[in-house]
Amino acid sequence: MNTTTDRIYLDHSATTPVDPRVVEAMAPYWSTTFGNTESSHAYGRAAAGALAQARQTIASILNCRASEIVFTGSGTESDNLALRGAAWAAREGGQGSHILATPIEHHGVGRTLGQLQNLFGFSVEELPVDRYGVVDPGDVASAIRPDTVLVSVILANNEIGTVQRAEEIGRICRARGVLFHTDAVQAPGRLALAPVVAESDLMALSAHKFYGPKGVGLLFVRRNTPLIPAITGGDHERGRRPGTVNVAGAVGLAAALRMADEGRTAENAALRALRDRLIEGVLEAVPESRLTGHPQRRLPHHASFVFRGVEGESIVQALDLAGIAASSGAACAEGEPEPSFVLKALGLPAEWGIGSLRLTLGRSNTQEHVDRVLTILPEVIADLRGAR
Amino acid sequence: MNTTTDRIYLDHSATTPVDPRVVEAMAPYWSTTFGNTESSHAYGRAAAGALAQARQTIASILNCRASEIVFTGSGTESDNLALRGAAWAAREGGQGSHILATPIEHHGVGRTLGQLQNLFGFSVEELPVDRYGVVDPGDVASAIRPDTVLVSVILANNEIGTVQRAEEIGRICRARGVLFHTDAVQAPGRLALAPVVAESDLMALSAHKFYGPKGVGLLFVRRNTPLIPAITGGDHERGRRPGTVNVAGAVGLAAALRMADEGRTAENAALRALRDRLIEGVLEAVPESRLTGHPQRRLPHHASFVFRGVEGESIVQALDLAGIAASSGAACAEGEPEPSFVLKALGLPAEWGIGSLRLTLGRSNTQEHVDRVLTILPEVIADLRGAR
Repeated sequence: MNTTTDRIYLDHSATTPVDPRVVEAMAPYWSTTFGNTESSHAYGRAAAGALAQARQTIASILNCRASEIVFTGSGTESDNLALRGAAWAAREGGQGSHILATPIEHHGVGRTLGQLQNLFGFSVEELPVDRYGVVDPGDVASAIRPDTVLVSVILANNEIGTVQRAEEIGRICRARGVLFHTDAVQAPGRLALAPVVAESDLMALSAHKFYGPKGVGLLFVRRNTPLIPAITGGDHERGRRPGTVNVAGAVGLAAALRMADEGRTAENAALRALRDRLIEGVLEAVPESRLTGHPQRRLPHHASFVFRGVEGESIVQALDLAGIAASSGAACAEGEPEPSFVLKALGLPAEWGIGSLRLTLGRSNTQEHVDRVLTILPEVIADLRGAR
Repeated sequence: MNTTTDRIYLDHSATTPVDPRVVEAMAPYWSTTFGNTESSHAYGRAAAGALAQARQTIASILNCRASEIVFTGSGTESDNLALRGAAWAAREGGQGSHILATPIEHHGVGRTLGQLQNLFGFSVEELPVDRYGVVDPGDVASAIRPDTVLVSVILANNEIGTVQRAEEIGRICRARGVLFHTDAVQAPGRLALAPVVAESDLMALSAHKFYGPKGVGLLFVRRNTPLIPAITGGDHERGRRPGTVNVAGAVGLAAALRMADEGRTAENAALRALRDRLIEGVLEAVPESRLTGHPQRRLPHHASFVFRGVEGESIVQALDLAGIAASSGAACAEGEPEPSFVLKALGLPAEWGIGSLRLTLGRSNTQEHVDRVLTILPEVIADLRGAR
């Protein structure tokens, strides 16, 4: 297993290769239609036209207005703009400084709320989750206070694949006059986005998670949502996100989103079949193994496990040696393995939580890839357990 | 003048086409070496290796440590990270909240300082500039107070091309224990960067200004400079800038910076000759015309003018119709033309300041292009004046 071509990539929730059709779509915007979208001359107008078209493509998929799309540099930046922007604006507007979020948000949300609390005096409260990481919409309704200004719930969790009842939560927030943000970075191609957009005020996406380029994300911002820019500068993106717009990136994001949307049903059927074979096979072949996240309400390409008494990062390394790319939520800080904050929030005991493994399927994967994992993984776990 | 190939692009300070060699350097990082640099498997390591190499290339040009380079999404984001990061950290450290900056900073700096003042309680004071936009280093020394934590001076102004005595200012700041940030976005390829880096704590660059891709910038952060991240999330870039790293963009930035650095002397000699021909020709052929910015201490590719009693945007539009892409600092708000904040800061009367025009040369320009401008521009100005 020495060549890259023999390798099996099972880490599509970390990032995806750019689809060759997306690379082709971006090509004219490097050296030919290269203008600055803010320039009023022909070069600028050509670039602005391409940007407008990309925005329109995305708006038609999300079923929103083109003016509600803000291009950013990443999903994390989109989360920051949503949370900082809405929180600062709400406080300036005298509406309060209480924010609700799950304990299983991506760091782009979780650490931003941490800074809003520690540096800027906001009060952040965690919503309860069950052992699968699911938030009960009723708990959101109970937790909203008169001074609550914002609720943030990750649409589909990157580590455990659990999908939230985001539309119900969004409706509750709207009825109570509270803004609802969802980090939907893991969702494109896997879940229908338009119904979630319809019930959200803010939604973050990142192109490289759905076969688009790295370095470009977007934030859906519902019309009339008060937002103070988290990064300040020029008037780009209607004053919500400055910096010369990455036209090639925006075009690439739009092309990738269109393909993800058009191929969604067929792709998910194939991915779900592979995923189910993978989950059933692993749980059957590996003793003391468990699925993490919800068994049904989960992303169709996402399989995540814990193996008792094994270190996740050791599994990842052993699989890598065998030519299989996977990931683990566990981090080894100062030599002592610890479960991820997500698995801790689910209440998983440490001897289980340290042994986490995530296998996320994508367009390139086949049944043979799954079968190779089902041959190799049980040996890897047995070896690691034997070596203890 | 109907085809793009006949057009003359004279707006290189707004943006540049990506050099075909940079496009080629980025190519492997879309679909082949596509891993997430934070992944521990082979795909991740390959991506991390490419990123490390790009960082090293840049560090050797800037004559700094690789660990002092932080990749961002734009020059504006770099400015934001520098100012927000240093200001918030200084206040948390109890060192004060007084900031000094010129009145001719790019909006990425100026509006960020505005938000730091209006939303976060910092005290921002303007440094004086002379009629060419030059800051006297002695004025910086006099303006520094015991509670001053940060000085920000744009290295070379985008609108008027004036180059500051940044190294002297940096030395003064260092002697007084105050951080020095410089927005050097206009400088690569035109000025030697390493001597400025040597006297700075923070320096912002943007790839698309020097024939690199849009959507990627960098911030030089001197070792041990306290910085609170302006965007929060994962641990990328040593905890200073989260979000999956745009490897293709970083590789492209490094390739473009290397070419800009290697070609600097030869390119500037050619550009300076064209620029001088342009400036002399315009001032000679157009009555009531003036150069803006410093006549000698200016970027070698940069020519900026004001024409009395003419609207800058009208000049830009007329030139565009004639196939020449230029820009104006003047903005037409609510129908009434106004000089840019930069020209106001220089004390230029409004009847001059509204008529600003910037012509910025680049690799593709020739003496014929300059001569075409020298033929067309005087007619354009005469026509506009006649139409009043």
